Amino acid sequence: METKELAQALDNLRATTPLVHNITNYVTVNDCANALLAIGGSPIMSDDVDDVVDITTICGALVLNIGTLNSHTIAGMKAAGARASELGHPIVLDPVGAGASRLRTETAAALLDTLAISIVRGNVSEIKALALGAASTRGVDACPDDAVTRENASEVARFCKEFAARTGTVVAATGTIDIVADANRAFAVFNGSAMQGRITGAGCMLSSITGAYAQAYAQDTLIAALAAVATTGVAGDVAEQRMGAEDGNGSFRTYLLDALCNLQGADLAAWAKIEEL
Amino acid sequence: METKELAQALDNLRATTPLVHNITNYVTVNDCANALLAIGGSPIMSDDVDDVVDITTICGALVLNIGTLNSHTIAGMKAAGARASELGHPIVLDPVGAGASRLRTETAAALLDTLAISIVRGNVSEIKALALGAASTRGVDACPDDAVTRENASEVARFCKEFAARTGTVVAATGTIDIVADANRAFAVFNGSAMQGRITGAGCMLSSITGAYAQAYAQDTLIAALAAVATTGVAGDVAEQRMGAEDGNGSFRTYLLDALCNLQGADLAAWAKIEEL
Amino acid sequence: METKELAQALDNLRATTPLVHNITNYVTVNDCANALLAIGGSPIMSDDVDDVVDITTICGALVLNIGTLNSHTIAGMKAAGARASELGHPIVLDPVGAGASRLRTETAAALLDTLAISIVRGNVSEIKALALGAASTRGVDACPDDAVTRENASEVARFCKEFAARTGTVVAATGTIDIVADANRAFAVFNGSAMQGRITGAGCMLSSITGAYAQAYAQDTLIAALAAVATTGVAGDVAEQRMGAEDGNGSFRTYLLDALCNLQGADLAAWAKIEEL
Repeated sequence: METKELAQALDNLRATTPLVHNITNYVTVNDCANALLAIGGSPIMSDDVDDVVDITTICGALVLNIGTLNSHTIAGMKAAGARASELGHPIVLDPVGAGASRLRTETAAALLDTLAISIVRGNVSEIKALALGAASTRGVDACPDDAVTRENASEVARFCKEFAARTGTVVAATGTIDIVADANRAFAVFNGSAMQGRITGAGCMLSSITGAYAQAYAQDTLIAALAAVATTGVAGDVAEQRMGAEDGNGSFRTYLLDALCNLQGADLAAWAKIEEL
Repeated sequence: METKELAQALDNLRATTPLVHNITNYVTVNDCANALLAIGGSPIMSDDVDDVVDITTICGALVLNIGTLNSHTIAGMKAAGARASELGHPIVLDPVGAGASRLRTETAAALLDTLAISIVRGNVSEIKALALGAASTRGVDACPDDAVTRENASEVARFCKEFAARTGTVVAATGTIDIVADANRAFAVFNGSAMQGRITGAGCMLSSITGAYAQAYAQDTLIAALAAVATTGVAGDVAEQRMGAEDGNGSFRTYLLDALCNLQGADLAAWAKIEEL
Repeated sequence: METKELAQALDNLRATTPLVHNITNYVTVNDCANALLAIGGSPIMSDDVDDVVDITTICGALVLNIGTLNSHTIAGMKAAGARASELGHPIVLDPVGAGASRLRTETAAALLDTLAISIVRGNVSEIKALALGAASTRGVDACPDDAVTRENASEVARFCKEFAARTGTVVAATGTIDIVADANRAFAVFNGSAMQGRITGAGCMLSSITGAYAQAYAQDTLIAALAAVATTGVAGDVAEQRMGAEDGNGSFRTYLLDALCNLQGADLAAWAKIEEL
């Protein structure tokens, strides 16, 4: 199993404070910044076409999140993405709401086609929308029909592997069970709390953290993505255990950041529940 | 009294997970999303004119909040509002800062004139600015002179009824005492904490929650708005009771989301302090 | 020492509820609003060129924060800044990421050149970038080489005095040790927690609070800036003391707002650790 590598990836991240350029939505951007700071990275947000090239240049990874897309940020994503591709920086694409609108589906597809995307991180419905052009009816949440279970995990893993092979990316399709795959290997991650579906930004925070790992563990992008998914899952477990009777999604959000902040490499290795599929 | 209906409205909301499209300000958008998730809805934020029609189409309610208005979001509001009107979806208008600037006052008035707005939710100064074109001097907070008291509650209720009749809406004018009225009936809600004035977004969260109720209890928009106001007020009461000596507006914000998350229909019915005026 | 004046400044602020217009980034805008509410001010956020003149007119101070700059907000900053200059309102400039991109460095310099800026509040790297046109490599965080220590504090103070003299401003260069200077005097503030570097928005919140103090203590802008820096530092100390073993940056952020909310003038005077340099 890869758990030693997960610990190594987190230790690397903490030792190097990766500077991550995020072009992301205005809903969860604060959570993304705090999640990056909690895990040990340094966040920069910049979306203007006149600013992004300079910012990408001083960073080591780029995260493109299409949560509140507009013509202004699309131009910023293209310019930043071109520069990051040129510099060989890892690029994470989070296709928030792909399938929910034509603009989102087409923009995500165009970014995937034209940029050297390293990792695609979305919920299963978004990944399917991107892979198949299928429409979703549940907005930014996964459709219940798309839920990954013990029964269909191998099938979803095959689907992700194929999509990863076709696009030359690592695919992280997250939900109750998370699937992380490249063209050749796939893993299921069983960590995480149902409360992560009751806060906004759980997926967005994961995508930003994935950018930090991709930079800190460039030797193996699959393991970097797996470490990010396991990190968020384990932090969700820790946060859930801390919940008292009066706590709800407000406290859970706080506990999740706290857990990311206090997570050590050895704990990540010990608590991650991962199976190769 | 309507308390059974309030419980029913919340139970409906929890059972149906209403998908609510929000075009809102970037100050409190994260709080709006978490408040919707806490109460049992599913939030989507989208403001680009090329995205909003698709998003409104898959949602069941639309919330227009003019907190940080610009030409870009005004175009989005018009397009989304036209589509929602066409589909018969309830539209909630939150005229944040109406009276504080010409752009806000005129935009709120134009949206109210041209769209099939179901519910107007604002503080009393904003409602007055919208109804009378009056200017406010306290920005996004209500003017002290406009405070609703036991003494003037009936007078404010009459004013709200008249404005509701003229605009074909339900009016929710919130503050220390909240007034919820349509053309024929008016209620006062006595729940809520003074701490709700010490956090940003208390009103915005309420408007987003109102969108979820309007969808979940479409049979009676007045009761839907009343349930939303009572929900936020009761959650404020619960949050205030949890405050310790070291707690301030940071903890209160967390407790408020927690209280929304844990609120049950029966509690809402039991704890709501409502009088018909 | 100035501690009585600090207490007076906070008491004034609480007594007058300064209305502060913020044109700021979408990353930490919610924290800025809650920090202003916590300390006793009233925040308004507005960036559209068609809205800002009206909003600035009803406010008493303006905060310009270039954290997520774009052509749209630059136009808003110029229009609001011109109006505030005309009205004699204090203007606080926060040059977030100056040195990290040409757009940020040049925009900050242009705002400083053309507007009647009262206070420049940034980290030492940003202040240096603004004063010297130097480039930074750590994005929105200060470069380790720029850290202010007991050893170099007098030298940094001289640098800040000179920059203050040249620009006619008060300069607040914050970090582990904060330097607050005008052309003639400089102070070092030794309060604050290392955790303030682990949350996003600590600097942005300080800049917004500085706007409230500049309005509430207009008789002495240097003391106003010093009070703002000491306030945030003392609140950081209080928040840190509250941290438990499971707490991280999520809880710290909440505790910081709580501490701002509960801080009294007398406590600020008693707990501020200030030396004149």
